[in-house]
Amino acid sequence: MSVPPIEITANARPATFEVEAINEHGAIVPTVIAGEHPLTIYLDKRELVTLMTLGAAPEHLALGYLRNQRLVADLAELAAVQVDWATDSVAITSRTLRASGVTMWESSPGAAELDSRLARRTITTGCAQGSVFGDLMEALDQVALPAAARLSEEVLLTVMERIRSHESIYRLAGAVHGCALCSNAGDNRGDILRFVEDVGRHNAVDAIAGWMWLEQVTGADKIFYTTGRLTSEMVIKAAQMGIPFLVSRSGLTQMGYEIARRVGMTMIGRCQGRHYLLFTGRERFVTPSAGAVA
Amino acid sequence: MSVPPIEITANARPATFEVEAINEHGAIVPTVIAGEHPLTIYLDKRELVTLMTLGAAPEHLALGYLRNQRLVADLAELAAVQVDWATDSVAITSRTLRASGVTMWESSPGAAELDSRLARRTITTGCAQGSVFGDLMEALDQVALPAAARLSEEVLLTVMERIRSHESIYRLAGAVHGCALCSNAGDNRGDILRFVEDVGRHNAVDAIAGWMWLEQVTGADKIFYTTGRLTSEMVIKAAQMGIPFLVSRSGLTQMGYEIARRVGMTMIGRCQGRHYLLFTGRERFVTPSAGAVA
Repeated sequence: MSVPPIEITANARPATFEVEAINEHGAIVPTVIAGEHPLTIYLDKRELVTLMTLGAAPEHLALGYLRNQRLVADLAELAAVQVDWATDSVAITSRTLRASGVTMWESSPGAAELDSRLARRTITTGCAQGSVFGDLMEALDQVALPAAARLSEEVLLTVMERIRSHESIYRLAGAVHGCALCSNAGDNRGDILRFVEDVGRHNAVDAIAGWMWLEQVTGADKIFYTTGRLTSEMVIKAAQMGIPFLVSRSGLTQMGYEIARRVGMTMIGRCQGRHYLLFTGRERFVTPSAGAVA
Repeated sequence: MSVPPIEITANARPATFEVEAINEHGAIVPTVIAGEHPLTIYLDKRELVTLMTLGAAPEHLALGYLRNQRLVADLAELAAVQVDWATDSVAITSRTLRASGVTMWESSPGAAELDSRLARRTITTGCAQGSVFGDLMEALDQVALPAAARLSEEVLLTVMERIRSHESIYRLAGAVHGCALCSNAGDNRGDILRFVEDVGRHNAVDAIAGWMWLEQVTGADKIFYTTGRLTSEMVIKAAQMGIPFLVSRSGLTQMGYEIARRVGMTMIGRCQGRHYLLFTGRERFVTPSAGAVA
Protein backbone atom coordinates (compact mmCIF):
# COMPACT_ATOMS: atom_id res chain seq x y z
CA MET A 1 0.00 0.00 0.00
CA SER A 2 1.56 3.27 -1.04
CA VAL A 3 0.31 6.81 -0.61
CA PRO A 4 1.13 9.88 -2.70
CA PRO A 5 3.85 11.97 -1.06
CA ILE A 6 2.79 14.53 1.53
CA GLU A 7 4.46 17.92 1.90
CA ILE A 8 5.67 17.83 5.47
CA THR A 9 7.86 20.13 7.56
CA ALA A 10 10.37 18.89 10.15
CA ASN A 11 10.12 21.65 12.75
CA ALA A 12 11.00 20.19 16.11
CA ARG A 13 11.51 22.61 19.01
CA PRO A 14 14.48 22.54 21.40
CA ALA A 15 13.50 19.96 24.01
CA THR A 16 14.96 21.53 27.12
CA PHE A 17 15.70 24.89 28.70
CA GLU A 18 17.79 25.86 31.70
CA VAL A 19 16.46 27.90 34.61
CA GLU A 20 17.81 28.73 38.05
CA ALA A 21 16.36 27.17 41.16
CA ILE A 22 17.33 27.45 44.84
CA ASN A 23 17.76 24.24 46.77
CA GLU A 24 17.25 23.42 50.45
CA HIS A 25 20.78 24.65 51.25
CA GLY A 26 20.08 28.07 49.73
CA ALA A 27 22.38 27.32 46.79
CA ILE A 28 21.52 28.37 43.27
CA VAL A 29 21.13 25.26 41.09
CA PRO A 30 20.99 25.53 37.28
CA THR A 31 18.15 23.17 36.40
CA VAL A 32 17.14 21.71 33.07
CA ILE A 33 13.40 21.78 32.40
CA ALA A 34 11.29 20.39 29.58
CA GLY A 35 9.89 22.65 26.89
CA GLU A 36 6.14 23.11 26.59
CA HIS A 37 4.50 24.91 23.70
CA PRO A 38 0.94 25.39 22.49
CA LEU A 39 0.31 23.88 19.07
CA THR A 40 -3.03 24.62 17.43
CA ILE A 41 -4.10 22.08 14.82
CA TYR A 42 -5.95 23.36 11.77
CA LEU A 43 -7.50 20.92 9.30
CA ASP A 44 -8.39 22.67 6.05
CA LYS A 45 -8.30 26.02 7.87
CA ARG A 46 -10.68 24.76 10.53
CA GLU A 47 -9.33 25.08 14.12
CA LEU A 48 -9.60 21.72 15.86
CA VAL A 49 -7.65 21.80 19.11
CA THR A 50 -4.70 23.35 20.92
CA LEU A 51 -2.31 20.74 22.33
CA MET A 52 0.45 21.59 24.81
CA THR A 53 3.52 19.76 23.58
CA LEU A 54 7.25 19.35 24.02
CA GLY A 55 7.42 19.90 20.26
CA ALA A 56 9.80 17.03 19.52
CA ALA A 57 7.69 15.58 16.70
CA PRO A 58 4.92 18.11 15.99
CA GLU A 59 4.06 16.87 12.49
CA HIS A 60 3.67 13.27 13.66
CA LEU A 61 1.71 14.46 16.70
CA ALA A 62 -0.76 16.31 14.48
CA LEU A 63 -1.13 13.32 12.14
CA GLY A 64 -1.54 10.90 15.04
CA TYR A 65 -4.12 13.16 16.63
CA LEU A 66 -6.20 13.15 13.43
CA ARG A 67 -5.86 9.41 13.12
CA ASN A 68 -6.63 8.52 16.73
CA GLN A 69 -9.60 10.91 16.78
CA ARG A 70 -10.68 9.25 13.52
CA LEU A 71 -11.11 12.60 11.79
CA VAL A 72 -9.24 11.47 8.68
CA ALA A 73 -9.67 7.88 7.54
CA ASP A 74 -7.03 7.66 4.83
CA LEU A 75 -3.59 9.27 4.64
CA ALA A 76 -4.07 9.63 0.88
CA GLU A 77 -6.66 12.34 1.66
CA LEU A 78 -3.89 14.66 2.88
CA ALA A 79 -1.68 16.94 0.78
CA ALA A 80 0.38 18.81 3.41
CA VAL A 81 1.32 19.02 7.10
CA GLN A 82 3.02 22.33 7.89
CA VAL A 83 4.19 23.35 11.35
CA ASP A 84 4.85 27.07 11.91
CA TRP A 85 6.14 28.01 15.36
CA ALA A 86 5.83 31.74 14.61
CA THR A 87 2.09 31.18 15.00
CA ASP A 88 2.27 28.01 17.18
CA SER A 89 0.21 26.16 14.63
CA VAL A 90 0.13 23.23 12.27
CA ALA A 91 -1.85 23.52 9.06
CA ILE A 92 -3.06 20.25 7.58
CA THR A 93 -4.41 20.53 4.08
CA SER A 94 -6.50 17.91 2.32
CA ARG A 95 -6.08 17.12 -1.35
CA THR A 96 -9.74 18.03 -1.78
CA LEU A 97 -9.19 21.56 -0.48
CA ARG A 98 -5.98 22.02 -2.42
CA ALA A 99 -7.55 20.83 -5.66
CA SER A 100 -10.57 23.05 -5.18
CA GLY A 101 -8.41 26.16 -4.94
CA VAL A 102 -10.77 27.75 -2.42
CA THR A 103 -9.27 29.91 0.33
CA MET A 104 -12.16 29.90 2.78
CA TRP A 105 -12.76 26.73 4.73
CA GLU A 106 -16.54 27.08 4.55
CA SER A 107 -16.31 26.82 0.76
CA SER A 108 -14.37 23.56 0.90
CA PRO A 109 -16.09 20.52 -0.60
CA GLY A 110 -15.23 18.56 2.58
CA ALA A 111 -16.54 21.15 5.04
CA ALA A 112 -19.93 19.60 5.62
CA GLU A 113 -18.51 16.13 6.17
CA LEU A 114 -15.86 17.39 8.62
CA ASP A 115 -18.56 19.28 10.51
CA SER A 116 -20.51 16.09 10.85
CA ARG A 117 -17.46 14.18 12.15
CA LEU A 118 -16.75 16.92 14.69
CA ALA A 119 -20.35 16.97 15.85
CA ARG A 120 -20.09 13.35 16.92
CA ARG A 121 -17.24 14.06 19.28
CA THR A 122 -17.22 13.03 22.89
CA ILE A 123 -14.54 14.37 25.16
CA THR A 124 -13.09 11.68 27.39
CA THR A 125 -10.10 11.60 29.63
CA GLY A 126 -7.41 9.21 30.66
CA CYS A 127 -4.71 11.22 32.31
CA ALA A 128 -5.98 14.74 32.11
CA GLN A 129 -9.15 15.44 30.20
CA GLY A 130 -8.44 14.04 26.81
CA SER A 131 -10.62 14.34 23.80
CA VAL A 132 -11.69 11.58 21.52
CA PHE A 133 -14.29 11.66 18.82
CA GLY A 134 -17.16 9.37 18.14
CA ASP A 135 -17.89 6.12 19.85
CA LEU A 136 -14.53 4.57 20.63
CA MET A 137 -15.91 1.53 22.35
CA GLU A 138 -17.95 0.68 19.29
CA ALA A 139 -14.89 1.09 17.08
CA LEU A 140 -13.01 -1.34 19.32
CA ASP A 141 -15.26 -4.17 18.27
CA GLN A 142 -13.76 -3.85 14.80
CA VAL A 143 -10.23 -4.30 16.14
CA ALA A 144 -8.69 -7.72 15.57
CA LEU A 145 -5.34 -8.22 17.26
CA PRO A 146 -3.33 -11.15 15.85
CA ALA A 147 -4.09 -14.25 17.91
CA ALA A 148 -0.95 -16.08 16.76
CA ALA A 149 1.52 -13.37 17.80
CA ARG A 150 3.88 -14.38 20.62
CA LEU A 151 6.15 -12.37 22.92
CA SER A 152 8.97 -14.19 24.64
CA GLU A 153 10.18 -13.21 28.09
CA GLU A 154 13.64 -12.78 26.59
CA VAL A 155 12.41 -10.11 24.16
CA LEU A 156 10.43 -8.37 26.93
CA LEU A 157 13.58 -8.17 29.06
CA THR A 158 15.52 -6.87 26.05
CA VAL A 159 12.95 -4.11 25.55
CA MET A 160 13.15 -3.15 29.22
CA GLU A 161 16.95 -3.02 29.06
CA ARG A 162 16.96 -0.95 25.84
CA ILE A 163 14.49 1.55 27.34
CA ARG A 164 16.58 1.82 30.50
CA SER A 165 19.74 2.69 28.60
CA HIS A 166 18.05 4.98 26.05
CA GLU A 167 19.02 8.67 26.12
CA SER A 168 16.00 10.60 27.29
CA ILE A 169 14.71 14.04 28.12
CA TYR A 170 13.11 12.49 31.19
CA ARG A 171 16.54 11.71 32.58
CA LEU A 172 17.64 15.33 32.01
CA ALA A 173 14.53 17.25 32.91
CA GLY A 174 11.77 14.96 34.17
CA ALA A 175 8.20 16.15 33.61
CA VAL A 176 7.69 14.15 30.41
CA HIS A 177 6.29 10.77 29.48
CA GLY A 178 7.92 8.48 26.95
CA CYS A 179 6.58 5.93 24.52
CA ALA A 180 8.52 3.47 22.39
CA LEU A 181 7.57 1.30 19.45
CA CYS A 182 9.71 -1.86 19.49
CA SER A 183 10.23 -4.67 17.06
CA ASN A 184 8.93 -8.16 17.73
CA ALA A 185 10.06 -9.77 14.45
CA GLY A 186 13.21 -10.77 12.62
CA ASP A 187 16.75 -10.32 13.81
CA ASN A 188 16.07 -7.05 15.61
CA ARG A 189 13.44 -8.27 18.07
CA GLY A 190 13.39 -5.96 21.09
CA ASP A 191 14.96 -3.02 19.23
CA ILE A 192 13.49 0.44 19.68
CA LEU A 193 12.16 1.55 16.29
CA ARG A 194 10.76 4.88 17.47
CA PHE A 195 10.97 6.71 20.81
CA VAL A 196 8.94 9.85 21.53
CA GLU A 197 8.66 11.91 24.69
CA ASP A 198 6.12 14.61 25.40
CA VAL A 199 4.63 16.57 28.30
CA GLY A 200 1.46 14.58 27.77
CA ARG A 201 1.52 10.79 27.59
CA HIS A 202 -1.28 10.92 25.03
CA ASN A 203 0.74 13.24 22.85
CA ALA A 204 3.64 10.78 22.91
CA VAL A 205 1.42 7.90 21.82
CA ASP A 206 -0.29 10.05 19.19
CA ALA A 207 3.12 11.05 17.76
CA ILE A 208 4.07 7.39 17.38
CA ALA A 209 0.69 6.64 15.77
CA GLY A 210 1.27 9.51 13.33
CA TRP A 211 4.72 8.22 12.42
CA MET A 212 3.38 4.69 11.88
CA TRP A 213 0.62 6.07 9.67
CA LEU A 214 3.00 8.19 7.60
CA GLU A 215 5.56 5.41 7.21
CA GLN A 216 2.89 2.73 6.70
CA VAL A 217 4.24 0.69 9.60
CA THR A 218 1.88 -2.01 10.86
CA GLY A 219 1.35 -2.94 14.50
CA ALA A 220 0.94 -6.71 14.46
CA ASP A 221 4.65 -7.53 14.88
CA LYS A 222 5.40 -4.69 17.31
CA ILE A 223 5.53 -4.07 21.04
CA PHE A 224 4.35 -0.77 22.51
CA TYR A 225 6.09 0.52 25.63
CA THR A 226 4.93 3.50 27.71
CA THR A 227 6.20 5.04 30.93
CA GLY A 228 2.61 6.06 31.66
CA ARG A 229 -0.27 4.33 33.36
CA LEU A 230 -2.38 1.85 31.46
CA THR A 231 -5.71 3.67 31.53
CA SER A 232 -8.62 3.05 29.17
CA GLU A 233 -7.44 5.60 26.61
CA MET A 234 -3.91 4.18 26.41
CA VAL A 235 -5.25 0.66 25.79
CA ILE A 236 -7.73 1.94 23.19
CA LYS A 237 -4.98 3.76 21.29
CA ALA A 238 -2.65 0.74 21.27
CA ALA A 239 -5.56 -1.39 20.02
CA GLN A 240 -6.33 1.13 17.27
CA MET A 241 -2.71 0.82 16.16
CA GLY A 242 -3.16 -2.95 15.95
CA ILE A 243 -0.40 -3.68 18.46
CA PRO A 244 -0.97 -6.88 20.48
CA PHE A 245 1.61 -6.18 23.22
CA LEU A 246 1.36 -3.22 25.62
CA VAL A 247 4.10 -2.83 28.23
CA SER A 248 4.45 -0.22 30.98
CA ARG A 249 6.66 0.73 33.88
CA SER A 250 3.49 1.84 35.70
CA GLY A 251 0.30 0.23 36.90
CA LEU A 252 -3.11 -0.03 35.33
CA THR A 253 -6.70 0.90 35.96
CA GLN A 254 -9.80 -1.22 36.02
CA MET A 255 -11.04 0.04 32.65
CA GLY A 256 -7.62 -0.40 31.09
CA TYR A 257 -7.74 -4.01 32.32
CA GLU A 258 -11.29 -4.61 31.09
CA ILE A 259 -10.70 -3.14 27.65
CA ALA A 260 -7.45 -5.11 27.23
CA ARG A 261 -9.37 -8.32 28.01
CA ARG A 262 -12.19 -7.35 25.65
CA VAL A 263 -9.87 -6.72 22.69
CA GLY A 264 -7.57 -9.61 23.57
CA MET A 265 -4.43 -7.57 24.19
CA THR A 266 -1.42 -8.92 26.08
CA MET A 267 -0.77 -6.31 28.76
CA ILE A 268 2.24 -6.27 31.06
CA GLY A 269 2.68 -3.65 33.80
CA ARG A 270 5.01 -2.72 36.65
CA CYS A 271 8.08 -3.47 34.56
CA GLN A 272 11.11 -2.58 36.69
CA GLY A 273 14.51 -4.17 36.32
CA ARG A 274 13.70 -7.82 35.66
CA HIS A 275 10.33 -7.68 37.41
CA TYR A 276 7.00 -7.52 35.67
CA LEU A 277 3.34 -8.43 36.07
CA LEU A 278 1.44 -10.07 33.22
CA PHE A 279 -2.19 -8.99 33.44
CA THR A 280 -4.04 -10.04 30.31
CA GLY A 281 -3.56 -12.09 27.13
CA ARG A 282 -1.39 -14.72 28.88
CA GLU A 283 -1.67 -17.14 25.97
CA ARG A 284 0.64 -14.94 23.87
CA PHE A 285 3.44 -14.75 26.44
CA VAL A 286 6.15 -17.39 26.31
CA THR A 287 8.60 -18.20 29.11
CA PRO A 288 11.61 -20.53 28.72
CA SER A 289 10.35 -23.05 31.28
CA ALA A 290 6.67 -23.21 30.59
CA GLY A 291 6.12 -22.12 27.03
CA ALA A 292 2.96 -20.05 27.01
CA VAL A 293 2.05 -19.53 30.66
CA ALA A 294 -1.68 -20.14 30.31
CA MET B 1 -20.59 35.09 51.51
CA SER B 2 -23.22 32.40 51.75
CA VAL B 3 -24.95 30.50 49.00
CA PRO B 4 -28.36 28.85 49.09
CA PRO B 5 -28.06 25.13 49.79
CA ILE B 6 -27.47 22.82 46.83
CA GLU B 7 -29.01 19.37 46.55
CA ILE B 8 -25.97 17.17 46.24
CA THR B 9 -25.44 13.42 46.24
CA ALA B 10 -22.45 11.68 47.85
CA ASN B 11 -21.92 8.78 45.46
CA ALA B 12 -18.26 7.81 45.58
CA ARG B 13 -17.27 4.57 43.85
CA PRO B 14 -15.07 1.87 45.40
CA ALA B 15 -11.52 3.06 44.77
CA THR B 16 -9.80 -0.25 44.11
CA PHE B 17 -10.40 -3.69 42.65
CA GLU B 18 -8.37 -6.87 42.81
CA VAL B 19 -7.24 -8.79 39.74
CA GLU B 20 -4.83 -11.66 39.19
CA ALA B 21 -1.46 -11.14 37.54
CA ILE B 22 1.43 -13.50 36.84
CA ASN B 23 4.89 -12.38 37.88
CA GLU B 24 8.34 -13.16 36.45
CA HIS B 25 8.51 -16.37 38.48
CA GLY B 26 5.25 -17.64 37.00
CA ALA B 27 3.43 -17.15 40.29
CA ILE B 28 -0.12 -15.82 40.44
CA VAL B 29 -0.13 -12.51 42.31
CA PRO B 30 -3.40 -10.94 43.47
CA THR B 31 -2.95 -7.28 42.52
CA VAL B 32 -4.90 -4.23 43.59
CA ILE B 33 -5.73 -1.85 40.74
CA ALA B 34 -7.37 1.57 40.69
CA GLY B 35 -10.97 1.99 39.56
CA GLU B 36 -11.72 3.97 36.41
CA HIS B 37 -15.21 4.93 35.35
CA PRO B 38 -16.70 7.18 32.68
CA LEU B 39 -18.68 10.08 34.12
CA THR B 40 -20.67 12.21 31.69
CA ILE B 41 -21.41 15.73 32.91
CA TYR B 42 -24.78 17.25 31.98
CA LEU B 43 -25.47 20.91 32.72
CA ASP B 44 -29.19 21.65 32.43
CA LYS B 45 -29.64 18.49 30.37
CA ARG B 46 -26.88 19.55 27.97
CA GLU B 47 -24.06 16.97 27.59
CA LEU B 48 -20.71 18.66 28.19
CA VAL B 49 -17.98 16.06 28.54
CA THR B 50 -17.18 12.50 29.58
CA LEU B 51 -14.39 12.31 32.14
CA MET B 52 -12.67 9.06 33.09
CA THR B 53 -12.42 9.11 36.87
CA LEU B 54 -11.58 7.05 39.92
CA GLY B 55 -14.95 8.22 41.23
CA ALA B 56 -13.75 9.17 44.71
CA ALA B 57 -15.38 12.61 44.67
CA PRO B 58 -17.58 12.77 41.57
CA GLU B 59 -19.80 15.66 42.72
CA HIS B 60 -16.80 17.85 43.54
CA LEU B 61 -15.12 16.83 40.29
CA ALA B 62 -18.15 17.95 38.28
CA LEU B 63 -18.38 21.25 40.16
CA GLY B 64 -14.65 21.91 39.82
CA TYR B 65 -14.81 21.12 36.13
CA LEU B 66 -17.56 23.70 35.62
CA ARG B 67 -15.65 26.23 37.68
CA ASN B 68 -12.23 25.70 36.07
CA GLN B 69 -13.76 25.76 32.59
CA ARG B 70 -15.54 28.95 33.66
CA LEU B 71 -18.89 27.62 32.48
CA VAL B 72 -20.67 28.71 35.67
CA ALA B 73 -19.58 31.95 37.33
CA ASP B 74 -21.48 31.77 40.60
CA LEU B 75 -22.32 28.77 42.77
CA ALA B 76 -25.64 30.44 43.62
CA GLU B 77 -26.74 29.72 40.03
CA LEU B 78 -26.88 25.99 40.82
CA ALA B 79 -29.74 24.06 42.38
CA ALA B 80 -28.54 20.43 42.28
CA VAL B 81 -25.61 18.12 41.56
CA GLN B 82 -26.75 14.51 41.21
CA VAL B 83 -24.43 11.62 40.41
CA ASP B 84 -26.05 8.43 39.11
CA TRP B 85 -23.70 5.51 38.45
CA ALA B 86 -26.48 3.46 36.85
CA THR B 87 -26.08 5.82 33.89
CA ASP B 88 -22.47 6.93 34.62
CA SER B 89 -23.62 10.52 34.69
CA VAL B 90 -23.87 13.61 36.82
CA ALA B 91 -26.79 15.98 36.26
CA ILE B 92 -26.20 19.58 37.27
CA THR B 93 -29.32 21.71 37.36
CA SER B 94 -29.39 25.50 37.47
CA ARG B 95 -31.89 27.42 39.54
CA THR B 96 -33.01 29.08 36.31
CA LEU B 97 -33.90 25.76 34.71
CA ARG B 98 -35.57 24.44 37.86
CA ALA B 99 -37.65 27.59 38.32
CA SER B 100 -38.72 27.56 34.70
CA GLY B 101 -40.15 24.07 35.02
CA VAL B 102 -39.18 23.21 31.45
CA THR B 103 -38.08 19.68 30.70
CA MET B 104 -36.28 20.25 27.43
CA TRP B 105 -32.91 21.90 27.58
CA GLU B 106 -33.51 23.93 24.43
CA SER B 107 -36.42 25.66 26.15
CA SER B 108 -34.29 26.74 29.12
CA PRO B 109 -33.91 30.48 29.59
CA GLY B 110 -30.13 29.96 29.98
CA ALA B 111 -29.69 27.85 26.85
CA ALA B 112 -28.56 30.64 24.55
CA GLU B 113 -25.99 31.95 27.02
CA LEU B 114 -24.57 28.48 27.71
CA ASP B 115 -24.30 27.89 23.98
CA SER B 116 -22.29 31.06 23.64
CA ARG B 117 -19.92 30.03 26.47
CA LEU B 118 -19.42 26.60 24.91
CA ALA B 119 -18.73 28.13 21.51
CA ARG B 120 -15.75 30.04 22.90
CA ARG B 121 -14.06 26.88 24.01
CA THR B 122 -10.50 25.97 23.14
CA ILE B 123 -9.22 22.53 23.92
CA THR B 124 -5.76 22.58 25.44
CA THR B 125 -3.70 19.91 27.06
CA GLY B 126 -1.28 19.60 29.89
CA CYS B 127 -0.86 15.95 30.56
CA ALA B 128 -3.12 14.34 28.05
CA GLN B 129 -5.36 16.47 25.92
CA GLY B 130 -7.26 18.55 28.40
CA SER B 131 -10.05 20.90 27.61
CA VAL B 132 -10.41 24.43 28.83
CA PHE B 133 -12.86 27.02 27.67
CA GLY B 134 -12.25 30.59 26.61
CA ASP B 135 -9.02 32.44 26.76
CA LEU B 136 -7.31 31.23 29.91
CA MET B 137 -4.25 33.39 29.50
CA GLU B 138 -6.41 36.49 29.34
CA ALA B 139 -8.23 35.42 32.49
CA LEU B 140 -4.89 35.03 34.23
CA ASP B 141 -4.27 38.74 34.04
CA GLN B 142 -7.18 39.18 36.42
CA VAL B 143 -5.62 36.86 38.99
CA ALA B 144 -4.03 38.62 41.97
CA LEU B 145 -2.13 36.30 44.29
CA PRO B 146 -1.47 37.78 47.74
CA ALA B 147 1.95 39.48 47.72
CA ALA B 148 2.26 39.46 51.50
CA ALA B 149 1.71 35.71 51.93
CA ARG B 150 4.73 33.80 53.25
CA LEU B 151 5.61 30.10 53.36
CA SER B 152 8.25 28.97 55.82
CA GLU B 153 10.57 26.07 55.09
CA GLU B 154 9.32 24.46 58.28
CA VAL B 155 5.73 24.40 57.02
CA LEU B 156 6.89 23.10 53.61
CA LEU B 157 8.71 20.20 55.29
CA THR B 158 5.63 19.53 57.44
CA VAL B 159 3.46 19.33 54.31
CA MET B 160 5.92 16.93 52.68
CA GLU B 161 5.97 14.74 55.78
CA ARG B 162 2.15 14.72 56.08
CA ILE B 163 1.80 13.74 52.42
CA ARG B 164 4.37 10.97 52.82
CA SER B 165 2.51 9.37 55.72
CA HIS B 166 -0.99 9.89 54.29
CA GLU B 167 -2.97 6.78 53.43
CA SER B 168 -3.34 6.64 49.69
CA ILE B 169 -4.72 4.63 46.82
CA TYR B 170 -1.43 5.28 45.06
CA ARG B 171 0.38 3.21 47.67
CA LEU B 172 -2.08 0.34 47.20
CA ALA B 173 -2.63 0.41 43.47
CA GLY B 174 -0.49 3.06 41.76
CA ALA B 175 -1.86 4.51 38.52
CA VAL B 176 -3.36 7.59 40.18
CA HIS B 177 -2.26 11.13 40.87
CA GLY B 178 -2.91 12.88 44.16
CA CYS B 179 -3.54 16.50 45.08
CA ALA B 180 -3.73 18.01 48.55
CA LEU B 181 -4.96 21.34 49.84
CA CYS B 182 -2.98 22.28 52.94
CA SER B 183 -3.32 25.01 55.53
CA ASN B 184 -0.85 27.88 55.74
CA ALA B 185 -2.53 29.79 58.57
CA GLY B 186 -3.26 29.48 62.28
CA ASP B 187 -2.30 26.59 64.52
CA ASN B 188 -2.76 23.94 61.85
CA ARG B 189 -0.22 25.21 59.31
CA GLY B 190 0.90 22.31 57.14
CA ASP B 191 -2.18 20.20 57.85
CA ILE B 192 -3.90 18.45 54.95
CA LEU B 193 -7.39 19.93 54.64
CA ARG B 194 -8.41 17.91 51.60
CA PHE B 195 -6.73 15.06 49.72
CA VAL B 196 -8.07 13.74 46.41
CA GLU B 197 -6.68 11.08 44.09
CA ASP B 198 -7.81 10.36 40.55
CA VAL B 199 -6.66 8.60 37.41
CA GLY B 200 -6.13 12.03 35.89
CA ARG B 201 -4.12 14.69 37.67
CA HIS B 202 -6.48 17.33 36.28
CA ASN B 203 -9.45 15.51 37.73
CA ALA B 204 -7.80 15.53 41.16
CA VAL B 205 -7.18 19.28 41.03
CA ASP B 206 -10.69 19.92 39.67
CA ALA B 207 -12.21 17.91 42.53
CA ILE B 208 -10.36 20.06 45.07
CA ALA B 209 -11.45 23.22 43.24
CA GLY B 210 -15.05 21.99 43.36
CA TRP B 211 -14.84 21.29 47.08
CA MET B 212 -13.34 24.74 47.75
CA TRP B 213 -16.11 26.32 45.70
CA LEU B 214 -18.87 24.41 47.49
CA GLU B 215 -17.44 25.04 50.95
CA GLN B 216 -16.48 28.65 50.13
CA VAL B 217 -12.86 28.01 51.05
CA THR B 218 -10.44 30.69 49.84
CA GLY B 219 -6.97 30.01 48.46
CA ALA B 220 -4.86 32.90 49.79
CA ASP B 221 -3.82 31.14 53.00
CA LYS B 222 -3.41 27.68 51.48
CA ILE B 223 -0.71 25.53 49.91
CA PHE B 224 -1.46 23.27 46.95
CA TYR B 225 0.44 20.00 46.65
CA THR B 226 0.36 17.70 43.62
CA THR B 227 2.18 14.48 42.78
CA GLY B 228 1.97 15.53 39.13
CA ARG B 229 4.16 17.63 36.91
CA LEU B 230 3.90 21.40 36.99
CA THR B 231 2.71 22.00 33.44
CA SER B 232 0.94 25.15 32.23
CA GLU B 233 -2.53 23.86 32.99
CA MET B 234 -1.66 22.89 36.58
CA VAL B 235 -0.23 26.36 37.28
CA ILE B 236 -3.26 28.04 35.66
CA LYS B 237 -5.68 26.03 37.81
CA ALA B 238 -3.80 26.81 41.05
CA ALA B 239 -3.79 30.49 40.07
CA GLN B 240 -7.53 30.40 39.35
CA MET B 241 -8.04 29.02 42.87
CA GLY B 242 -6.08 31.99 44.24
CA ILE B 243 -3.43 29.79 45.87
CA PRO B 244 0.02 31.45 46.06
CA PHE B 245 2.02 28.27 46.83
CA LEU B 246 2.27 25.31 44.44
CA VAL B 247 4.35 22.32 45.52
CA SER B 248 5.13 19.11 43.64
CA ARG B 249 7.09 15.91 43.96
CA SER B 250 7.77 16.17 40.20
CA GLY B 251 9.46 18.59 37.86
CA LEU B 252 8.11 21.42 35.76
CA THR B 253 7.85 22.54 32.19
CA GLN B 254 8.92 25.76 30.58
CA MET B 255 5.36 27.09 30.26
CA GLY B 256 4.57 26.13 33.84
CA TYR B 257 7.61 28.14 34.85
CA GLU B 258 6.73 31.13 32.69
CA ILE B 259 3.12 31.29 33.81
CA ALA B 260 4.11 30.97 37.47
CA ARG B 261 6.45 33.94 37.04
CA ARG B 262 3.79 35.92 35.19
CA VAL B 263 1.16 35.47 37.90
CA GLY B 264 3.68 35.77 40.74
CA MET B 265 3.22 32.27 42.13
CA THR B 266 5.73 30.64 44.49
CA MET B 267 6.47 27.28 42.88
CA ILE B 268 8.52 24.52 44.47
CA GLY B 269 9.30 21.27 42.66
CA ARG B 270 11.23 18.03 43.09
CA CYS B 271 10.14 17.69 46.72
CA GLN B 272 11.57 14.40 47.99
CA GLY B 273 12.39 13.71 51.60
CA ARG B 274 13.89 17.00 52.82
CA HIS B 275 15.04 18.07 49.35
CA TYR B 276 13.31 20.63 47.19
CA LEU B 277 13.93 23.18 44.45
CA LEU B 278 12.41 26.67 44.69
CA PHE B 279 11.75 27.90 41.16
CA THR B 280 9.65 31.08 41.29
CA GLY B 281 8.29 33.61 43.77
CA ARG B 282 11.35 33.41 46.03
CA GLU B 283 10.33 36.53 47.95
CA ARG B 284 7.51 34.61 49.63
CA PHE B 285 9.67 31.73 50.88
CA VAL B 286 11.26 32.06 54.31
CA THR B 287 14.15 29.96 55.62
CA PRO B 288 15.36 30.03 59.27
CA SER B 289 18.80 31.37 58.40
CA ALA B 290 18.14 33.91 55.72
CA GLY B 291 14.56 35.07 56.08
CA ALA B 292 13.17 35.42 52.60
CA VAL B 293 15.75 33.93 50.25
CA ALA B 294 15.60 36.66 47.61
